[in-house]
Amino acid sequence: MTWAGDRRGSYDARALAGKLSGQLEGSNPSVTRLAQPGPDCGDAVIVVSSDKQLAAAESWKPALVVAPRGLERPSAIASLITVVEPRLALAQLTSLFDTRPLPDPGVHPSATVAQGAVLAEGARVGAGAVIGAGAAIGSGTIVGEGALVGAGAVLGSDCRLHARASLLDGVKLGDRVIVHSGAVLGSDGFGYVPSQGGALKLHHLGTVVIGDDVEIGANTCVDRGTLGDTLIGDRTKIDNLCQIAHNVTIGSDCLIAGQCGIAGSTRIGDRVTMAGSAGVADHLTIGDGATLGPRATVLKDVPEGETWIGYPAQPYRRFARQSYLSGKLERIWRFVKQSEEKVGA
Amino acid sequence: MTWAGDRRGSYDARALAGKLSGQLEGSNPSVTRLAQPGPDCGDAVIVVSSDKQLAAAESWKPALVVAPRGLERPSAIASLITVVEPRLALAQLTSLFDTRPLPDPGVHPSATVAQGAVLAEGARVGAGAVIGAGAAIGSGTIVGEGALVGAGAVLGSDCRLHARASLLDGVKLGDRVIVHSGAVLGSDGFGYVPSQGGALKLHHLGTVVIGDDVEIGANTCVDRGTLGDTLIGDRTKIDNLCQIAHNVTIGSDCLIAGQCGIAGSTRIGDRVTMAGSAGVADHLTIGDGATLGPRATVLKDVPEGETWIGYPAQPYRRFARQSYLSGKLERIWRFVKQSEEKVGA
Amino acid sequence: MTWAGDRRGSYDARALAGKLSGQLEGSNPSVTRLAQPGPDCGDAVIVVSSDKQLAAAESWKPALVVAPRGLERPSAIASLITVVEPRLALAQLTSLFDTRPLPDPGVHPSATVAQGAVLAEGARVGAGAVIGAGAAIGSGTIVGEGALVGAGAVLGSDCRLHARASLLDGVKLGDRVIVHSGAVLGSDGFGYVPSQGGALKLHHLGTVVIGDDVEIGANTCVDRGTLGDTLIGDRTKIDNLCQIAHNVTIGSDCLIAGQCGIAGSTRIGDRVTMAGSAGVADHLTIGDGATLGPRATVLKDVPEGETWIGYPAQPYRRFARQSYLSGKLERIWRFVKQSEEKVGA
Repeated sequence: MTWAGDRRGSYDARALAGKLSGQLEGSNPSVTRLAQPGPDCGDAVIVVSSDKQLAAAESWKPALVVAPRGLERPSAIASLITVVEPRLALAQLTSLFDTRPLPDPGVHPSATVAQGAVLAEGARVGAGAVIGAGAAIGSGTIVGEGALVGAGAVLGSDCRLHARASLLDGVKLGDRVIVHSGAVLGSDGFGYVPSQGGALKLHHLGTVVIGDDVEIGANTCVDRGTLGDTLIGDRTKIDNLCQIAHNVTIGSDCLIAGQCGIAGSTRIGDRVTMAGSAGVADHLTIGDGATLGPRATVLKDVPEGETWIGYPAQPYRRFARQSYLSGKLERIWRFVKQSEEKVGA
Repeated sequence: MTWAGDRRGSYDARALAGKLSGQLEGSNPSVTRLAQPGPDCGDAVIVVSSDKQLAAAESWKPALVVAPRGLERPSAIASLITVVEPRLALAQLTSLFDTRPLPDPGVHPSATVAQGAVLAEGARVGAGAVIGAGAAIGSGTIVGEGALVGAGAVLGSDCRLHARASLLDGVKLGDRVIVHSGAVLGSDGFGYVPSQGGALKLHHLGTVVIGDDVEIGANTCVDRGTLGDTLIGDRTKIDNLCQIAHNVTIGSDCLIAGQCGIAGSTRIGDRVTMAGSAGVADHLTIGDGATLGPRATVLKDVPEGETWIGYPAQPYRRFARQSYLSGKLERIWRFVKQSEEKVGA
Repeated sequence: MTWAGDRRGSYDARALAGKLSGQLEGSNPSVTRLAQPGPDCGDAVIVVSSDKQLAAAESWKPALVVAPRGLERPSAIASLITVVEPRLALAQLTSLFDTRPLPDPGVHPSATVAQGAVLAEGARVGAGAVIGAGAAIGSGTIVGEGALVGAGAVLGSDCRLHARASLLDGVKLGDRVIVHSGAVLGSDGFGYVPSQGGALKLHHLGTVVIGDDVEIGANTCVDRGTLGDTLIGDRTKIDNLCQIAHNVTIGSDCLIAGQCGIAGSTRIGDRVTMAGSAGVADHLTIGDGATLGPRATVLKDVPEGETWIGYPAQPYRRFARQSYLSGKLERIWRFVKQSEEKVGA
């Protein structure tokens, strides 16, 4: 493991303007650090999103500021890059200035690589990692310290298994997939059949198949399918501590926040957003483009494009109306009591 | 680690009929694969649950079909086994056709086994696993890659610790217990006593004791008891990402789905079912045979055999009635407004 | 790993009375075990909290009883220590009688310690642990079996990383911090920017900074900050399976129970209590001394000292009033129906 320490990417402002498709005004400093807007950013590039923030930046004297197109460079700001989308520029800059440490090239001597596993050029395997028989690891893919690649698992190119992630036997990743620490892909589904001797286990013979550019959060679990596979589509991002049960299908471009749960055989469409701790019961369908609010507990199918929330979840407008009506209960109750008293009188 | 690859169990239909206690009609093909009903099952055995599914299977031309007793073999189905309970047959078939890879027999050279640990005959220890001093591992038990068996832990026979499961010091498993990847058994309970210097930790000196035929899901946590033990009864199955706190007692034959939580010292009876993300507060008693609905938040004792749901949880009928009444709020509110207007007029 | 087995701390009653600042009455036995009040405590010290419990203890004949000041020693109790706060005494006793096994002193031969990592005197590193380049580990700190200390991570003195905990690169712990098995500190936050090619990842360049005397539960995740750091204050205790998102700030002396979630950039004050499975949305502020009830779903700022609960969470009094009013719905609905019938008649 190489420790980057204070080593940082170094770029001059002109080069950054090119990479961000922005326009440079002022001087052309060299910057080695991306910082939060605030004090102590004198040697850094910062990104601001408004004229207010740009004005505030004057006192911090950053080396370089990235701001939305249309804003004028204040004289106290020596160097300014204007861009169409500052948030996009921020994401690009986080990548450019990311010098976090990686396992050293090649296979660490303390790692265990089974015979018959195939590692493509440029793959890295960290200390204490275990690669099973028949596994195939694509070029540029990084297997972190203590991570597990089970027998017959297949990883595309430029994937990143972070330290102590577990990819069990036969799990398949596309290209550029990121799996965070402690995530478990390919655990058995929770399936049993009642029998005289107690619940009889359904062995899980399917696997997990994940598309390209997917990200799976820390300590998230994705169970393998019973006979078929559990599927996660391209560019879908799943946060920490989520539970994706057996035989689930998740489409592409979904965003699933922390602690969400999706029960067995449910189908999540494309571009679905699930806020934190939302849950979907088994054998349901969530339509393309749907949004599930924070801690929504979904017990019915959700049509395309709708926003649902509540316990149990319902369309947002109905939930809001119901909340409004619940807020009237005090007045309703007063009315009923008074009316009853009048009748009694 | 041996990679099974395309190796599959191979059985002829007559042998399978015997194992499933079913009746064979038609030819006696040899099958090497259990498949989902659907296209591409020409070389496989499939299980159908209805006459509709059986009729649909005709076009897929499976080698062998398992169907409920009483259905007749269509002429396009060359070979049919009829059974009393197709779901049970499915579970049995998943076991017969399970050729997922195992660690090689014996102890992998990269594993660490402390002096004084005792491994019975037929035990397997995968790459990178760690077995602590004084641990005892029963015959046929498999410790997966990178799994931990703490000092003094005791595992019965034919257990399976999946890769990177952690059994901390002194934890005791019965026979045929399955612990999935990332599960932690024997972590400290969350117990503190207020003091002048901040919360003072209660050290946890008890352990976790688990019966026979129990299954613990991936990344689930079971805390050890403070002075006594946390107990989980025979044949209870717990899904992924559940939290079982210190001093909890769970009876036998329970089914606890993903992301459930059970707080400290609570007693769960036998044959209790908890749907996904259900939670039970501390020091409560859930009676035998009770059912907790999806995301039920239980803040009171639940009597035997009852079904509770809601936030906070209440008996199902009361919850349903309450939901019905909430649905009348629109009409109630309209009535109250009109009545008030009349009075005002 | 040393297995303590039946080895136990041994103390005579007089020494214990001194350590607990209590008063000893009766004989001065030597005790080797702390037990729960109940049968089979004949050789042990037990702690009781009431005169009832003390009376019950007579039949169990414990070697030594710790009881609240003011209670008199029954003649059947040979030896009694009275203390001001029995719960505090219990916590102290759990520490005195904690002889759970530790990794052996020094670095286990199967551990991997990168060049340039610095281990202070008395640090212990268990089997299969991995310490990255540039990491610094304070005196007396224990890194459990298979735990990970990432490159450049800094641990204070007398910390305890339990088996298979993961401290990723650059994470900083104060002194006496306990991190339980499977916890992940320093995973990437869930941050993306929409772009034509799908969600563009925000690389996370900040880290996690944790104060003194903090405890982090098993399989809990704490994400690193995007540009700044995620912060957890002194003496805060976090239970298992919690999700602490990027850029969160948690104050000191908080108690956060199992399965809680705190979304990005939210600020939790000092002395905040979160009951099990409580969740707080992003960019909110929870004031000092606030309490969030079980499974509270907090979507607004919570003022100092208030108790909130519900879905969405609201002040406790309002929640209780709302529950009371909901309980009147049956009567309200009956009234409305009867009134409508009268009007109709």
